[in-house]
Amino acid sequence: MRILLINPNTSQFVTDTAAAEARKVSAPKTAIEAVTGTIGPPIIGCRSEAAIGAYAALELAATHGRDADAIVLAVSFDCGLPAIRQAFSMPVVGMTEAAAHTACMVGGRFALLTFGDRVAPLYEELIDSYGLTSRFVGVHCIPALTPAQLRDPSLVQDRIVDAAHTLAKQGADSVILGGAVFAGLPNRLDKETPIPLIDGLAAAVRMAETLVDLRITKQTTGSYQLPGAKSLQGVGDDLRALFDGFDN
Amino acid sequence: MRILLINPNTSQFVTDTAAAEARKVSAPKTAIEAVTGTIGPPIIGCRSEAAIGAYAALELAATHGRDADAIVLAVSFDCGLPAIRQAFSMPVVGMTEAAAHTACMVGGRFALLTFGDRVAPLYEELIDSYGLTSRFVGVHCIPALTPAQLRDPSLVQDRIVDAAHTLAKQGADSVILGGAVFAGLPNRLDKETPIPLIDGLAAAVRMAETLVDLRITKQTTGSYQLPGAKSLQGVGDDLRALFDGFDN
Amino acid sequence: MRILLINPNTSQFVTDTAAAEARKVSAPKTAIEAVTGTIGPPIIGCRSEAAIGAYAALELAATHGRDADAIVLAVSFDCGLPAIRQAFSMPVVGMTEAAAHTACMVGGRFALLTFGDRVAPLYEELIDSYGLTSRFVGVHCIPALTPAQLRDPSLVQDRIVDAAHTLAKQGADSVILGGAVFAGLPNRLDKETPIPLIDGLAAAVRMAETLVDLRITKQTTGSYQLPGAKSLQGVGDDLRALFDGFDN
Amino acid sequence: MRILLINPNTSQFVTDTAAAEARKVSAPKTAIEAVTGTIGPPIIGCRSEAAIGAYAALELAATHGRDADAIVLAVSFDCGLPAIRQAFSMPVVGMTEAAAHTACMVGGRFALLTFGDRVAPLYEELIDSYGLTSRFVGVHCIPALTPAQLRDPSLVQDRIVDAAHTLAKQGADSVILGGAVFAGLPNRLDKETPIPLIDGLAAAVRMAETLVDLRITKQTTGSYQLPGAKSLQGVGDDLRALFDGFDN
Amino acid sequence: MRILLINPNTSQFVTDTAAAEARKVSAPKTAIEAVTGTIGPPIIGCRSEAAIGAYAALELAATHGRDADAIVLAVSFDCGLPAIRQAFSMPVVGMTEAAAHTACMVGGRFALLTFGDRVAPLYEELIDSYGLTSRFVGVHCIPALTPAQLRDPSLVQDRIVDAAHTLAKQGADSVILGGAVFAGLPNRLDKETPIPLIDGLAAAVRMAETLVDLRITKQTTGSYQLPGAKSLQGVGDDLRALFDGFDN
Amino acid sequence: MRILLINPNTSQFVTDTAAAEARKVSAPKTAIEAVTGTIGPPIIGCRSEAAIGAYAALELAATHGRDADAIVLAVSFDCGLPAIRQAFSMPVVGMTEAAAHTACMVGGRFALLTFGDRVAPLYEELIDSYGLTSRFVGVHCIPALTPAQLRDPSLVQDRIVDAAHTLAKQGADSVILGGAVFAGLPNRLDKETPIPLIDGLAAAVRMAETLVDLRITKQTTGSYQLPGAKSLQGVGDDLRALFDGFDN
Repeated sequence: MRILLINPNTSQFVTDTAAAEARKVSAPKTAIEAVTGTIGPPIIGCRSEAAIGAYAALELAATHGRDADAIVLAVSFDCGLPAIRQAFSMPVVGMTEAAAHTACMVGGRFALLTFGDRVAPLYEELIDSYGLTSRFVGVHCIPALTPAQLRDPSLVQDRIVDAAHTLAKQGADSVILGGAVFAGLPNRLDKETPIPLIDGLAAAVRMAETLVDLRITKQTTGSYQLPGAKSLQGVGDDLRALFDGFDN
Repeated sequence: MRILLINPNTSQFVTDTAAAEARKVSAPKTAIEAVTGTIGPPIIGCRSEAAIGAYAALELAATHGRDADAIVLAVSFDCGLPAIRQAFSMPVVGMTEAAAHTACMVGGRFALLTFGDRVAPLYEELIDSYGLTSRFVGVHCIPALTPAQLRDPSLVQDRIVDAAHTLAKQGADSVILGGAVFAGLPNRLDKETPIPLIDGLAAAVRMAETLVDLRITKQTTGSYQLPGAKSLQGVGDDLRALFDGFDN
Repeated sequence: MRILLINPNTSQFVTDTAAAEARKVSAPKTAIEAVTGTIGPPIIGCRSEAAIGAYAALELAATHGRDADAIVLAVSFDCGLPAIRQAFSMPVVGMTEAAAHTACMVGGRFALLTFGDRVAPLYEELIDSYGLTSRFVGVHCIPALTPAQLRDPSLVQDRIVDAAHTLAKQGADSVILGGAVFAGLPNRLDKETPIPLIDGLAAAVRMAETLVDLRITKQTTGSYQLPGAKSLQGVGDDLRALFDGFDN
Repeated sequence: MRILLINPNTSQFVTDTAAAEARKVSAPKTAIEAVTGTIGPPIIGCRSEAAIGAYAALELAATHGRDADAIVLAVSFDCGLPAIRQAFSMPVVGMTEAAAHTACMVGGRFALLTFGDRVAPLYEELIDSYGLTSRFVGVHCIPALTPAQLRDPSLVQDRIVDAAHTLAKQGADSVILGGAVFAGLPNRLDKETPIPLIDGLAAAVRMAETLVDLRITKQTTGSYQLPGAKSLQGVGDDLRALFDGFDN
Repeated sequence: MRILLINPNTSQFVTDTAAAEARKVSAPKTAIEAVTGTIGPPIIGCRSEAAIGAYAALELAATHGRDADAIVLAVSFDCGLPAIRQAFSMPVVGMTEAAAHTACMVGGRFALLTFGDRVAPLYEELIDSYGLTSRFVGVHCIPALTPAQLRDPSLVQDRIVDAAHTLAKQGADSVILGGAVFAGLPNRLDKETPIPLIDGLAAAVRMAETLVDLRITKQTTGSYQLPGAKSLQGVGDDLRALFDGFDN
Repeated sequence: MRILLINPNTSQFVTDTAAAEARKVSAPKTAIEAVTGTIGPPIIGCRSEAAIGAYAALELAATHGRDADAIVLAVSFDCGLPAIRQAFSMPVVGMTEAAAHTACMVGGRFALLTFGDRVAPLYEELIDSYGLTSRFVGVHCIPALTPAQLRDPSLVQDRIVDAAHTLAKQGADSVILGGAVFAGLPNRLDKETPIPLIDGLAAAVRMAETLVDLRITKQTTGSYQLPGAKSLQGVGDDLRALFDGFDN
């Protein structure tokens, strides 16, 4: 099985962290191909950057996704998820989406932990778009990371552990660590926390494998069916070719 | 007052229709500048095209919006609305957003009328993202328009009138006509319908003028504050310059 | 255009404040006629007084509204809004209703600031009746005003500015100032607040003008159609005549 | 125990029907005093009439309620319920309110059956204001009654039975008969229906007795505490005296 | 009238407390039979124990409920309520269910007070299953009781009074005391609290009497109709006989 | 990895069908142990039977689950899921739970297909308890199966395919087949359906494997922490021993 890991951030080190974790948790038969964004900011961190990221992810999928068995979005805002899910026939999974559904099978309510406070509403809206607001305790924001901390999040592991204790008191039964750079961190910290930490990237890779193995078919009706053939202007060659090839 | 009308569809005739209506309903002092998309499909009609349209609208705003007093999105999916609202200091209004809020001040519940059935969920999700699901009767889909009908929607006015009667029986107190190409049509048909037809483009232009005249200030905190300075890759020059100029 | 401004409070100074602001924000062509309640308390401040106010507003509309092009309710509980909207053919807008819909086009979530804590649930229920609870951060109550402060709310402007900072931290992207006596105050304070202050009275006047200019038609079906002819007992002559005149 | 039954409709025959049923279901020790509205229409049937009815009910409560142990609203829109509940210290119960809570203890979801289709949204909004929308199948409207049928609803009992069958198929586990004129009818028809019919008037009388016997105390904080002393203009003498007497 | 009071906890003293209160509030004509669980823990206090309690309550109903006119569940998690309501033809009422519906007729929003913090989510989910989340302020947890306090809850009455003050400030208009052992306590404390305390056991007994007197009929369709005849394995003789006797 | 598959129905053929499918979809390293209920009906089909089934499942888990790495509930009502999840430290997954979360990663909204119409509300309440009502199109009921059809559901495959077409038109992007007896059927039919069919049993097995491989830890706080040591009466020896062994 071949999984395409799309990181629409333009930072290679995020891709590397995510790909390493993906390779660790995936089945032996699974090959991980990881690609990095070429459009947009180094780290997506607000509404306008997320809109650019959605387009960037769609372009990456068009360029690299043709032969994949599944696509995983390695960005915690799940940028472009509905767009890519619609335009491709194979399973497409977002890391926060996968984390949220995993959290639901682990306890009652979950929280999400992130860095910097201006993104809290984006996560709230994302969880709400998944229909899971009633199971969501909310977003807990730790001050924004320095570049060094971003590259080595274990430098802030005390804050993560503290936050997990706080969130448990607020009624969370698990905590999602939001951010592709945190891939792999949950299993290193969860002995110290009263509630499990969910690794979105690992969850997404496993969910993608599961959807492939369950042989989920593609819709031929409704809003997730493939697009009709359209002549796209101003986009990359691969995306244009993708749409030229649709025939319904 | 200068309002920039952004049509992220790459069809000039849609821009022309919308701009004509915008000029008719706006105040004498208001100048309408209308621009057409250069990225994406002729008419946005599904999830992946809407993601492209959001990026296209943001690029258009960066290129043409610097001196505008307000921006109106002339596309009924309101593509890129939160992204543009965040990245600019002036009011930004979407046509379906404006129509929905207008409908709420006209009666209890409203419906939306559109063409082709695969987009119904996109409108439902859009209305839900505005928090207005409890006031929404739902989407009524008339079969997709032919190219000729798309250019002259009055060819299908009987179907619109019939649909309004049906929706009134289902509990709608008003109907939004979804689609920038329908700008101007509601006032030509509403003598024949038991409930008012809402013209999203006209509503959006008036709402934009109102927000300017109310002198609504820009947030300096939260998820709608301006982005931080970021080095964007692979985007248009104007969008890159816009982000280079942010300083918080 | 002639807008009837209805203040169902029996305090003339509230009418004067609201009318002054209404004249300032309305279009040159718009004439504002403002009337004051003759039934009920000086300032409506609880559930039972709001019920009286709804009836009082309906009586005022019957007496003064026949020739108006639109009606604006200058009371922040929007007393009698559905009743008057149904019984008249012209647009009818409430000031908190208009503020709430305006706030939705300005950011993600909004709050409402008021004085005295026993009315918080009334505003929560009002916003919920508009379907906007998911976009509502909540009510922030400042201690009840003294009579002098009520007549000159700028005496408490520091508290308003402080509250806006608090509400911004709680996730509000804008704040509605609840209370017709605050008309005009937002634009005098919003340089000092991190998020915009919404002036409900000003918003309502602009929304009323917009609905008139959009030529929104009256429903002839559903719960907002005009009442049937009914013989009313014990009401004012104008209200009785209004109902005598209905014919459906 | 003395229960004041308030019928804000100005039709004496509705009061008589309701009072007869109230006397039948109440405890031997309970005395029923029934009063008829003197303000408003013979039968309340739309939004504006309901606003008049709320005021009318409050006036009736002020005039007749001083010595009552509980108040029951014998009008299926529960006109004025929050207003009267706040302004009086004894229990106050609405007939549709009581029916809805009773229905919840009888099965999963309930429906409401009424006559004439323009009132459906009023009942939907009423049930929603009670927080019970998720347990509500909806309103089923039978064509409006003739005056003769209104005075003898058993003339339409076949339609009621048919409607109950339809609603059972739609998932209702019980049906509320909306309308004070139907008091007493449910127990005459429920042998023929697959799901129980709920008599709102009977339920309200029993609920009122229960609240009295449970010795529920009056709030001294929050939005349901008694109003403050206020000088009311233009209202009936008893209502003015009531407000003059408040002292908090 | 004969009411069967089922306490699925295996503690006789809880049954005794509940039965004493039930006898005090019920009508003179009502006989109370109270039974204690023989399966499960002394005091049900978590999810798995509540599942055992549901089965235990169903077994008790099968053994003792044949001749009852109504069943009341004297356990604040209302264990087994939907199961017993379906399997029997007479009214079945849970004590927290009855308390919640009572609270709704007393004010706007209510809270629930309990002991020990691990059960808060169970009450939240229970209230949500009743559809009443929008009227619920939440659960307030006082530290778990000692065995002595459990047998004499008046030892902690100061904490209850303090908590009621706190909850009133948070917007509660009434407070449910969660726990069958508190039966009778509310009326001894409510002079000292700003909002009424609701006694679930007393409310349930009165609601059960009301449902009997209203002659609510049993559904013959839907999910609350009686079960079909089934051969049950491994259950008590009375439960097996009950199911053997069904014939639809 | 050892997965315990619990079928609380007392029908061995259901266990056999479910176990066969579980073995087919699970990883090579996974061993499936399947056990059948000894308490309750052959096929759980209503509220009271589901309550018995929850207890039966808990007993089976106590008897057989000690050495398992994960537990899967092979009953489409997910009987006892929260109870078992709380009382055990390893992952516990319900088949409809897993199907619902899988469906969410496949499209926008999903439906559930089942046999016999009295169980529809049970599935609606189950999906609602998972917080997923906003993503749920609803339950579609095909007439109840005959015993022969129950043992060979492929006899009704035409009806399943027809229902999938109907549900697609109603807006479903996927359909869950509710019922452990349908395990394995979706992949045999989904070439003929416009939207994918979700196999709950297969999904649950894969989700259980995923949770084990993600090394999700057990909560030590909140409502899902292990029960305290309690003396249970009247239960099976293994369940009593399990509770005797808890120490928090």
